[in-house]
Amino acid sequence: MAEPDDNDRHAEKMAKKKAARDKIMATKTDEKGLIIVHTGKGKGKSTAAFGMIFRHIAHGRKCAVVQFIKGGMQTGERDLIERHFADLCEFHTMGEGFTWETQDKRRDMEMAQAAWAKAKELIADPSNTMVLLDEINIALRYDYVDVGEVVAFLRDAKPPMTHVVVTGRNAKDELVDLADLVTEMELVKHPFRAGIKAQIGVEW
Amino acid sequence: MAEPDDNDRHAEKMAKKKAARDKIMATKTDEKGLIIVHTGKGKGKSTAAFGMIFRHIAHGRKCAVVQFIKGGMQTGERDLIERHFADLCEFHTMGEGFTWETQDKRRDMEMAQAAWAKAKELIADPSNTMVLLDEINIALRYDYVDVGEVVAFLRDAKPPMTHVVVTGRNAKDELVDLADLVTEMELVKHPFRAGIKAQIGVEW
Repeated sequence: MAEPDDNDRHAEKMAKKKAARDKIMATKTDEKGLIIVHTGKGKGKSTAAFGMIFRHIAHGRKCAVVQFIKGGMQTGERDLIERHFADLCEFHTMGEGFTWETQDKRRDMEMAQAAWAKAKELIADPSNTMVLLDEINIALRYDYVDVGEVVAFLRDAKPPMTHVVVTGRNAKDELVDLADLVTEMELVKHPFRAGIKAQIGVEW
Repeated sequence: MAEPDDNDRHAEKMAKKKAARDKIMATKTDEKGLIIVHTGKGKGKSTAAFGMIFRHIAHGRKCAVVQFIKGGMQTGERDLIERHFADLCEFHTMGEGFTWETQDKRRDMEMAQAAWAKAKELIADPSNTMVLLDEINIALRYDYVDVGEVVAFLRDAKPPMTHVVVTGRNAKDELVDLADLVTEMELVKHPFRAGIKAQIGVEW
C-alpha cells in the first residue's frame, strides 16, 4: 500500500502522464464509420459486438443485426432488443445453427446468401449507424459467402459514417486487411474443460 | 463455391462432427457461479462484460455493476440500465476517471476501497446472479485494493452460484489462477493509430 506522503510525487508523475496522453489524443480528430472485426478462439466476440449495439441503442442511434449462423445463441439479447428497442434496432436471424447441426450444405449456403443480401440492404440504408454481421466469418470460411464480394461492398458501397462489425473465428486475411479495428479474443482458460456446461446469462 | 453434388459427403462429415461434439458436450453437466476475467490490451473487455449483464437482464435475473475506475466511460450502458432496468440491475460508479486524470492517489485509494466494500456487499447478496467489477484490475495493479483480500473473498465468501466478472488490463496472476474463465482481448489493429478519435456508440 502506498504511504499518503508519496501523494505529491504521484500527482506530479500522473500530471506528466496526463499531459502526454492529452497531447496524443489531440491528434485524433477524424471520425469515420469503422469496419470492426472480433475474431479468435476466445469468448466475447459476439458479446462485445452486442455491447456496442446496446451502446448505439442507449444513444438513440439506429442500428441492425444480421445473424449468419448461430440462430440458437444470443437469444437473450434478441429478446431484449425485440421487446424494448425494436424501433431502434432491426434484428434478422437468417441461420439455424452451426453447419454441423444442419448437415445440409445447400440449405446453409442459401441461408448465408439470403443473410448477406439482407446485410447489404441494411448497410446501404444510411439511417443505420451500425450494422452487426454476427458470425459472418463462419459463412466466409466455408465459402457460403464470397469474401471478395464482401470486401468490395464494404470498401465501395458502405456509407462513410456507418460502422460495420463482423464476428466469428478465423477472420479472413482480406477482411482483417480492410478493417480499422481488429481484436482477437484469446482463450486463456475455459470452464468447459472443467466439466462446466453452458449457463444462462453467461453463454446465452 | 461448393457444387450441390458434394452435399451428401458434407452431410456425412458434419454428422460425424456433430456426434463427436454432442459426446463431448454431454460430459459438461455441472453448473456453478463462475469467476470470469477479461484482460489484455485489446478492446471489448468491458463491452463484453456489459453484454453478459444485458443477458442477465434479458433473462430477468438480478445483477449489479461496480465501476472501479473509469466513471466517464460506459455512460451509454449506464443510462440504458438506469432508464429501463434499474429494478434488475444496481449500478454504482465509484471512481471518477483514470488515475492520471485525478492525480490524487489518496483520493483514488479511498474511492477504490469504497468500491470494493460495495462490491463485497453486492456479491454476498444471493439475490444477485452476476456482479461485474468493471476495471477492478487497475485498482488491483496500483494496490489500491489488495489482491489477496479479493482472492480470499471470492474463494471463501462468494455464494456458489453467483457469477463475478472482473475486467481491466494486467489482470494479476492470483486472480487468473482462481478464475474459471479467462479471456485475453488482444489488440491487432486500432483506429487511434490512423488518427481516428473515440466515437459515440463505439468507445462509449
